[in-house]
Amino acid sequence: MQEKWVVGIDLGGTTVKIAFLTTDGSMIDNWEIPTDNANEGANITSDIAKSINEKLAEWNHKKEDVLGAGMGAPGPFDYETGIIYNTVNLSWPDNFPLKDNLERDLGLPVILDNDANCAALGEMWKGAGEGYKDLVCVTLGTGVGGGIIVDGKIVQGAKGAAGEIGHITSIVENGAPCNCGKTGCLETISSATGIVRIAKERLAENPKSGLQEILQNNGTISAKDVFDQAIAGDEIANEVVSFVAFHLGLVLANIANTLNPEKIVLGGGVSKAGDILLKPVNDYFRKYSFKAVAQSTVIDVATLGNTAGVIGAAWLANK
Amino acid sequence: MQEKWVVGIDLGGTTVKIAFLTTDGSMIDNWEIPTDNANEGANITSDIAKSINEKLAEWNHKKEDVLGAGMGAPGPFDYETGIIYNTVNLSWPDNFPLKDNLERDLGLPVILDNDANCAALGEMWKGAGEGYKDLVCVTLGTGVGGGIIVDGKIVQGAKGAAGEIGHITSIVENGAPCNCGKTGCLETISSATGIVRIAKERLAENPKSGLQEILQNNGTISAKDVFDQAIAGDEIANEVVSFVAFHLGLVLANIANTLNPEKIVLGGGVSKAGDILLKPVNDYFRKYSFKAVAQSTVIDVATLGNTAGVIGAAWLANK
Repeated sequence: MQEKWVVGIDLGGTTVKIAFLTTDGSMIDNWEIPTDNANEGANITSDIAKSINEKLAEWNHKKEDVLGAGMGAPGPFDYETGIIYNTVNLSWPDNFPLKDNLERDLGLPVILDNDANCAALGEMWKGAGEGYKDLVCVTLGTGVGGGIIVDGKIVQGAKGAAGEIGHITSIVENGAPCNCGKTGCLETISSATGIVRIAKERLAENPKSGLQEILQNNGTISAKDVFDQAIAGDEIANEVVSFVAFHLGLVLANIANTLNPEKIVLGGGVSKAGDILLKPVNDYFRKYSFKAVAQSTVIDVATLGNTAGVIGAAWLANK
Repeated sequence: MQEKWVVGIDLGGTTVKIAFLTTDGSMIDNWEIPTDNANEGANITSDIAKSINEKLAEWNHKKEDVLGAGMGAPGPFDYETGIIYNTVNLSWPDNFPLKDNLERDLGLPVILDNDANCAALGEMWKGAGEGYKDLVCVTLGTGVGGGIIVDGKIVQGAKGAAGEIGHITSIVENGAPCNCGKTGCLETISSATGIVRIAKERLAENPKSGLQEILQNNGTISAKDVFDQAIAGDEIANEVVSFVAFHLGLVLANIANTLNPEKIVLGGGVSKAGDILLKPVNDYFRKYSFKAVAQSTVIDVATLGNTAGVIGAAWLANK
């Protein structure tokens, strides 16, 4: 008998990441295939199944020795039926029976969760949250995603909308519009997109600044430019970072006042900024946390990078 | 063999509420004894045990047919050892071995949780949350307490400090000081104490108002006066209620954006204000909730009143 494996699948609008892991979470192989959005995404699940079957053949590993597949996808889902209601970056029609189609094409049991939740589970299984059961994971990327883990399990909520940390309102009046239809959401502030917007708004007031020079030379700036210039001592960049850190620290403190998790794990590109962001975030977090929470909840940085999603997806199948 | 019973105990600074319930949650009896804070509270656990034994004798019910006792107490605790670290309204020394002492005196297994969590469990078992497994319960009384229930279980958090909803910061700058040492906590706004403070501050600006007349006639006002005057159309009272509802609605929305509970149950004296408070709270809640959350999380009012604590405590023993 061969070693038992689980498959993790992380579905994005451009690529699908796929991985084989052992049941104790060791990575055997991981690769990517393109997401085929032609024909209303009709080939996506069969492409995934074909790729997995080919890789199993390469590894000479029997499908009977694969326990199942977990998939992270940009929900929202009906968790009971495995229907994905609608997606922004994928071309499936509304109410697409994702679980049924993938199970049919792949011939393995499939468990779905949304991509942010899978990233959280990955960090719990093999990343910064390893050994912990009460975690809040926040992905600071183009948007802001979240996954809440209580007693080792993802909190899904009444309509699968738990963990929408990016849509916590932090600027109550005159906040920037968010893709969700509200204004002033955390996502409009502490995502890479939000940081760039805030910096550009400040630069439009024409202050002298190293960040200003980059904008004029390149025609644009990135969130990394903002952090780099802040480290170099640029005043405007530091104002922007302080503003972002204030809102992030405040929102994390209020989440922790509610859940008192063992760890808050920050992932995504913005989390790589290092101490220039993390130190003030921690300071504001302590300032706005209830004393016992400030003493017991720790903020840490994710360690798995962009494999968190496939690892967490594989964890779903590891039952 | 007799019917199996469970004991619920709700420990307060002035009185101890005690109840017998059947294992399906029917109330057999409930009564109160005074909390004896003399001698550093040395008699509290033996008083409770004596009272329970006397009642069992009255009911002619054998102790062997009692499964155990649950107790709600004003934590924080070490949940593993059953030590209560310190209390504000009880005279026990720090690190009092509450579980061990009560088990010794009572001769039954004892399970502890904090009083706000027990109230939440009570509402889940037999109150507004009956039939639900994902609940957020908020008690709006002298202070603001909270209990978070995920998948039918209380979320305790890393140091037992989950559910500190009253200490979510809602007024970030120049908020009123809170007993916890921070400022601008929800408790400083939407507790009965907070409502009275806000109203008095507004009345100190000397506006003409029915509320002003009550203050001048009685030398003080209550939260109920504020709500009654708001219903009667008093402008100042309505301003205060609107301010309180705004912050409560915003905080509840942000909790729901994080957890998407099936229900948020509001209890405590302030929750009895009725639609004058609940309608604007709901409006602000919908305004600040992520769409799927606004569509699926419901705000409701607690139904058990001050028996929620003993019922939830009894639930703890019902394993």
